[in-house]
Amino acid sequence: MARNIQSLERAAAVLRLLAGGDRRLGLSDIASTLGLAKGTAHGILRTLQQEGFVEQDPVSGRYQLGAELLRLGNSYLDVHELRARALPWTDDLARASGESVHLGVLHHQGVLIVHHVFRPDDSRQVLEIGAMQPLHSTALGKVLCAVDPVAHAEAAEGDRKALTPATVTEAAEFEQILELTRARGWGSDVEETWDGIASVAAPVRDRRGMPVGAVGVTGAVERLCPGGELRPDLVAAVRDCARAVARDLGAGRF
Amino acid sequence: MARNIQSLERAAAVLRLLAGGDRRLGLSDIASTLGLAKGTAHGILRTLQQEGFVEQDPVSGRYQLGAELLRLGNSYLDVHELRARALPWTDDLARASGESVHLGVLHHQGVLIVHHVFRPDDSRQVLEIGAMQPLHSTALGKVLCAVDPVAHAEAAEGDRKALTPATVTEAAEFEQILELTRARGWGSDVEETWDGIASVAAPVRDRRGMPVGAVGVTGAVERLCPGGELRPDLVAAVRDCARAVARDLGAGRF
Repeated sequence: MARNIQSLERAAAVLRLLAGGDRRLGLSDIASTLGLAKGTAHGILRTLQQEGFVEQDPVSGRYQLGAELLRLGNSYLDVHELRARALPWTDDLARASGESVHLGVLHHQGVLIVHHVFRPDDSRQVLEIGAMQPLHSTALGKVLCAVDPVAHAEAAEGDRKALTPATVTEAAEFEQILELTRARGWGSDVEETWDGIASVAAPVRDRRGMPVGAVGVTGAVERLCPGGELRPDLVAAVRDCARAVARDLGAGRF
Repeated sequence: MARNIQSLERAAAVLRLLAGGDRRLGLSDIASTLGLAKGTAHGILRTLQQEGFVEQDPVSGRYQLGAELLRLGNSYLDVHELRARALPWTDDLARASGESVHLGVLHHQGVLIVHHVFRPDDSRQVLEIGAMQPLHSTALGKVLCAVDPVAHAEAAEGDRKALTPATVTEAAEFEQILELTRARGWGSDVEETWDGIASVAAPVRDRRGMPVGAVGVTGAVERLCPGGELRPDLVAAVRDCARAVARDLGAGRF
């Protein structure tokens, strides 16, 4: 069995470091944070820079992520079958619900947003493709935890941080919610991640019945939960969308 | 001077290979295309897979780009100062012009789109953030070539492919167009890249007067060039936008 390549693992750690926290770091910060000799860190940064994965500010000398990552990230999306199949259905869902739509997949300890349709109004909105959402508190994340054992393990073993007063952090209560999510086939988040924001999501399965992602709508709690309950028509629309995408992925009807 | 790290260069070559052409490749294809021993290629792929840069299809065993690239590409955008400064101005430009707006930077031999505002109507549009455009035929590309010596060298030495019957491929004519672009301060593309599509762009400079990118509108040639000429009000709106972004980047007024 081939062994992993240490310089590659270190380069990935450099990129992860630059992707979080400060995002513009000097050579000494990078070397000391990762426990590398300065010469070693410099060799990695030099090569990453030459390949376009890292850029160096000419004035401060600090390093940040490079443009090649954006190009490769876009190529990743181009080949993403779930996303390609979901494009028309998520557009329809945004139009029908009047709310923004997100498509997410499990990635490391969170939900990676692979598609985002803006709420169809004239408001300024920030594109969230490539952003991460927490597994334990969002509707997308809870759906993934309910149907995907790997996601479940990540959330069960992970640190379920209280993001709002409504976030469920306690293990037994979290498991009950996943049980409910599994039983009814959809998940919800009512101000458990962001104050004032609710969402509802459903799982998408592929032709082999395996969960491959989740799709959901997100919006102001006043619109999604009038009278304190999630609107049943929204739940139905989200589940319809998830079924349509699954059908396009080759899943059977029964 | 530190030497470049061979395994990193090889890993970058694997990712570039997966980003172009077929995009789903088996181990043998990858090894033979890059001239690597199969064991070497496997070690690289294994490590890239563990770090999330590559995914392997469980059925076919073929490799494709991984989700971590999307996450890192999004982090690259988050720290992109030009893009952050341009967000409100490009929104305004799309609203005022009724056309789609692109912000691009030089990357390798092309223009990398770092921001894209949809045409403000209800039509279905494909997000182009992370996509590449040719330097020699697009308005964004010609503007970069006119003001940035590195971009100029890439286009002058590169292969100026005829994409439509209107593409300028001949060296002397291309230089004349760059001269004109430089003199008037904006660039155009009238069906030189895509049939039926025209665009106009202007350069954005930073506080040191260095060109850092280009911004432009793109749309149907019938709307942008009534009577065969680019609408002067569009040219003015694009140049206003570029100046506003430059001001926000700290450029002086004179």
